[in-house]
Amino acid sequence: MPRYQPPIRDFIFLFYELFEINKRNGSIFSEYTRDIIEPILTEAGKIASNIILPSSVIGDKEGCKLNEGKVKTPNGFKEAFEHIVSGEWPSLNCDPKYGGQGIPLTIATAVGEFFGSANVALYIYHVLSHGVYSTIKAHGTEKQKQDFLPNLVNSSWTGTMNLTEPQCGTDLGLIRTKAVLTEKGDYKISGQKIWISAGDHDLSENIIHLVLAKIPGSPSGVKGISLFIVPKFLIDKDKKFGLRNNVSVGKLENKMGIHGNATCVMDYDEATGYLLGPKNKGLSCMFTMMNEARHAVGMQGLSQAEIAYQYATQFSKERIQGTPLKNNTQNSIAEPTIICHPDVRRMLLDQKSFIEGARAFAIWSSILIDDANHSSDEDAKGLVSLLIPIFKAFLSDKGFEYTVLAQQVLGGAGYIEDSQMSQFVRDSRIAMIYEGTNGIQAIDLVARKLSASGGKYLMSLITEINEFINDSQNNETLLNEFILPLKSAVTDLESSIDYFLNNGLTEPNNALAGATDFLHLFGHVILGYLWSQIAKKALFKLNENSDVEFFEAKLITGKFYMKRSLPETKVRLARVLAGQNSVMELNQDLF
Amino acid sequence: MPRYQPPIRDFIFLFYELFEINKRNGSIFSEYTRDIIEPILTEAGKIASNIILPSSVIGDKEGCKLNEGKVKTPNGFKEAFEHIVSGEWPSLNCDPKYGGQGIPLTIATAVGEFFGSANVALYIYHVLSHGVYSTIKAHGTEKQKQDFLPNLVNSSWTGTMNLTEPQCGTDLGLIRTKAVLTEKGDYKISGQKIWISAGDHDLSENIIHLVLAKIPGSPSGVKGISLFIVPKFLIDKDKKFGLRNNVSVGKLENKMGIHGNATCVMDYDEATGYLLGPKNKGLSCMFTMMNEARHAVGMQGLSQAEIAYQYATQFSKERIQGTPLKNNTQNSIAEPTIICHPDVRRMLLDQKSFIEGARAFAIWSSILIDDANHSSDEDAKGLVSLLIPIFKAFLSDKGFEYTVLAQQVLGGAGYIEDSQMSQFVRDSRIAMIYEGTNGIQAIDLVARKLSASGGKYLMSLITEINEFINDSQNNETLLNEFILPLKSAVTDLESSIDYFLNNGLTEPNNALAGATDFLHLFGHVILGYLWSQIAKKALFKLNENSDVEFFEAKLITGKFYMKRSLPETKVRLARVLAGQNSVMELNQDLF
Repeated sequence: MPRYQPPIRDFIFLFYELFEINKRNGSIFSEYTRDIIEPILTEAGKIASNIILPSSVIGDKEGCKLNEGKVKTPNGFKEAFEHIVSGEWPSLNCDPKYGGQGIPLTIATAVGEFFGSANVALYIYHVLSHGVYSTIKAHGTEKQKQDFLPNLVNSSWTGTMNLTEPQCGTDLGLIRTKAVLTEKGDYKISGQKIWISAGDHDLSENIIHLVLAKIPGSPSGVKGISLFIVPKFLIDKDKKFGLRNNVSVGKLENKMGIHGNATCVMDYDEATGYLLGPKNKGLSCMFTMMNEARHAVGMQGLSQAEIAYQYATQFSKERIQGTPLKNNTQNSIAEPTIICHPDVRRMLLDQKSFIEGARAFAIWSSILIDDANHSSDEDAKGLVSLLIPIFKAFLSDKGFEYTVLAQQVLGGAGYIEDSQMSQFVRDSRIAMIYEGTNGIQAIDLVARKLSASGGKYLMSLITEINEFINDSQNNETLLNEFILPLKSAVTDLESSIDYFLNNGLTEPNNALAGATDFLHLFGHVILGYLWSQIAKKALFKLNENSDVEFFEAKLITGKFYMKRSLPETKVRLARVLAGQNSVMELNQDLF
Repeated sequence: MPRYQPPIRDFIFLFYELFEINKRNGSIFSEYTRDIIEPILTEAGKIASNIILPSSVIGDKEGCKLNEGKVKTPNGFKEAFEHIVSGEWPSLNCDPKYGGQGIPLTIATAVGEFFGSANVALYIYHVLSHGVYSTIKAHGTEKQKQDFLPNLVNSSWTGTMNLTEPQCGTDLGLIRTKAVLTEKGDYKISGQKIWISAGDHDLSENIIHLVLAKIPGSPSGVKGISLFIVPKFLIDKDKKFGLRNNVSVGKLENKMGIHGNATCVMDYDEATGYLLGPKNKGLSCMFTMMNEARHAVGMQGLSQAEIAYQYATQFSKERIQGTPLKNNTQNSIAEPTIICHPDVRRMLLDQKSFIEGARAFAIWSSILIDDANHSSDEDAKGLVSLLIPIFKAFLSDKGFEYTVLAQQVLGGAGYIEDSQMSQFVRDSRIAMIYEGTNGIQAIDLVARKLSASGGKYLMSLITEINEFINDSQNNETLLNEFILPLKSAVTDLESSIDYFLNNGLTEPNNALAGATDFLHLFGHVILGYLWSQIAKKALFKLNENSDVEFFEAKLITGKFYMKRSLPETKVRLARVLAGQNSVMELNQDLF
């Protein structure tokens, strides 16, 4: 079997060489120096490779089972889950007040990538619990925080998000689940929720469901939705779990991937629930944790692309096949492995240059989230809000695409389930769909985020990139291979924004018809910007003769991205400029 | 469940309106007029929807089972197979001399699309048998033809292709399977073959394996490979099947998709085999049927994209969700189905415009194959040889991409296996891999096909397209929406060819590093050319007031392709022009 090697060196580069997190002014990162963090990453990496990864294949094969209303996770899941918990990994970036370790999200992002690569179906149980933790922490009463947070932090309880119903996914204004106030002041929740990840399982003592429901008499649409805490087991006075609540699993879904994660139909039959946050403000309360949740889903795309790339690379160095064409400077190779072939290298570099660029994006955006959370930095908050839909959709779309490409490197072997490549493809596919489909991310970006605060955050980002371009003209390598392509891509971004301004205000469909293409254009500009920063740093380090191989690889990989991936902005711009006509013209009967 | 409606009208358009097959000079098509063919397509369509399609989901769920050395196909497969056989569908384009119906491949291509959409795992059994039929017909002795062809034509026997071994897939020079001449004049075949589609099953009385093997003492590499007929049951004097041959199933593979098709490890242990074609010419004999086989695999990509598109379209017309933004001319819609949303339409039109363009490519290339086969038309033969790698790789790559996009239209529902969208994605994935991976197709195109006969076929195709462009300048609609974009795309194609000529001859890696991108560029030019022809015809028909809705839809869909898909040639050209540097530079240890 191929090995998974956690990309620790790359994270160290991003933390301490590219973004220099512990040198940031007034930063929450100051105490997290390399000598503290590197051993943490090393330990997390070992657990990912040695403990978590072996449970992944079994999980895919066995899937979850529903027996007499109870979900059983695949063999090995409970052991791996408990191992993760005993190392206190899920509480890394939780508040020490509730038992957490208070480490920045930025560091936890690295650990999340490792665990996600190793077994994403298992990791999702933790991601959801963290989302519930964040939501209760942000909107709960002091009593609710005391009641729920410590056990969520120590993972003896886990959590779920209940939004979707059969008649509504994206359009939550259509939900029908009812919440009726009782004399005791709590609510009776009745209704059906579908596609509830981690809806039931045998990993934790209790499951805390966050449920969107309507209190009778509330306004129609999204303005009449409230949020409720509905525990699987009600909490008695000793804060131990007690009576079984009236929530049950109606069905376990048979999915394309993430078989080890229980996706449930949940039936609420006058289940006891507690209002979380203000009445009728449920949607905005639920969406507080949306940035983190969507960040985690973007990371899923990256994590699957990473492990698939590693497996493909190992295969390409072992598989002997074909005779590479000789050129003037090379001798022929007796038993060439397929990594000698240009078309195989093209596939691997497409993956590698995306992955490393995306990882830089992951850390940049994590730093911004940390800044926003910890110092109420409004600029960071605004920028995060702009970047998140791009991060979620671009990383999950491309993550899937490059996982498929990694599978392609193995040829026929990649199509056989034994190679695990099919599983990576199937597992990564969900990230394009949940936490808001990627189409919804694009609409959110174009219809809301671009114009937020009068376009302030958009404009300041473009200004930042243009300043970087202006500051980087004096190095010739950088200029030709990075800065000029970046400049051209930014121009494409600006042209598409101009198009939206001139055509999207009077006819919104002109913007909406180009939303997805715009998001991808923007994603490429960001990765192009980050690769240019990486290249600048690499050139600096190479001048110092520091870690030469690592930084030369960065330069070559970055050049590949700028030459071969970044030009996608051209076709994305052409699609944006096509506007609504060709999209809206066809009568729907003729589809 | 959604319905599958065979695209009969589109094939009628292609046969009798676009390509006017029965008006072609000296054509084998003259007798196949619309009144003869339309009822055949209608009947084939009914069988596809009513008989074959229901077996598809079961096939995916159950898969094949290996018990005591025998493979059992999923429930319903045998009945569907027998229904197809009783209608004599597999013999449509077989020689009447052996019991076939002698209908051109072009017509059979339509039927193949329907059957492939309905259940590709089942349809592959027929495709392989047809490949074995063609190979024996081309290279067999008169006795071999008499012995094997009638039963292959009537499907009481089926066939397989045995090329791959554990140590070699693409590079067949490495095969180890041995063939030792016996005193009787036949051979004893020993060795292991892997990934043998339809290797064993319960659908037919006998299975005829075509096996590549080396006769001891033959030259090394591909020049020492011979081809053998190895029947599962040896044929006795009455031409009935007799003694069991020493060929057995070593293993049944667990694959990502096409679960209903048995992919086997085949063990040959001194199995009796008969030399087919000349000694040491096995590879070229096997490759005679490669054009048809690769055409069939391209069709697989198209067939999956088509049924997935149909399911997505139906979902989009039924699912109520979201409120489309109003514009000045529209009233708001009370309960909008998601097909009202621009981003959903964008997804559907990406699929539709690819599918209809690809279908035109399918029929154009089928006509050329028919011409090449029946009238020894060397120009047709040369052009087919140039087009086939593009057809196979472009249609399977894009077919997969758009099947994934169709799945996306369903949101969460698309990830649940019940919707069958996951199956279409998983089933379509294999087409990018087998019959030569798409990377191999690209290398074949760039390294062999472009320069074949001094580039004659390439140049005459480009001349043909440029002449079409010159002849079509006088219609303004056509000019702006079709001809100018096509011209720009052809220029990109010419630029990339120039680049290869100037840089690929001295340094072949400059061409190989851009092979896949060049293939996609070329694929877009072909679809752009075909869409321009379709538009020209549609404008002509609209002038006549003929089938207005159909032809207006063609125009709109074509415009979408030219505006939104064709510009991909720009980024493909940029990637081609990037050459080998960024691809070959990185030391392999640094991947």
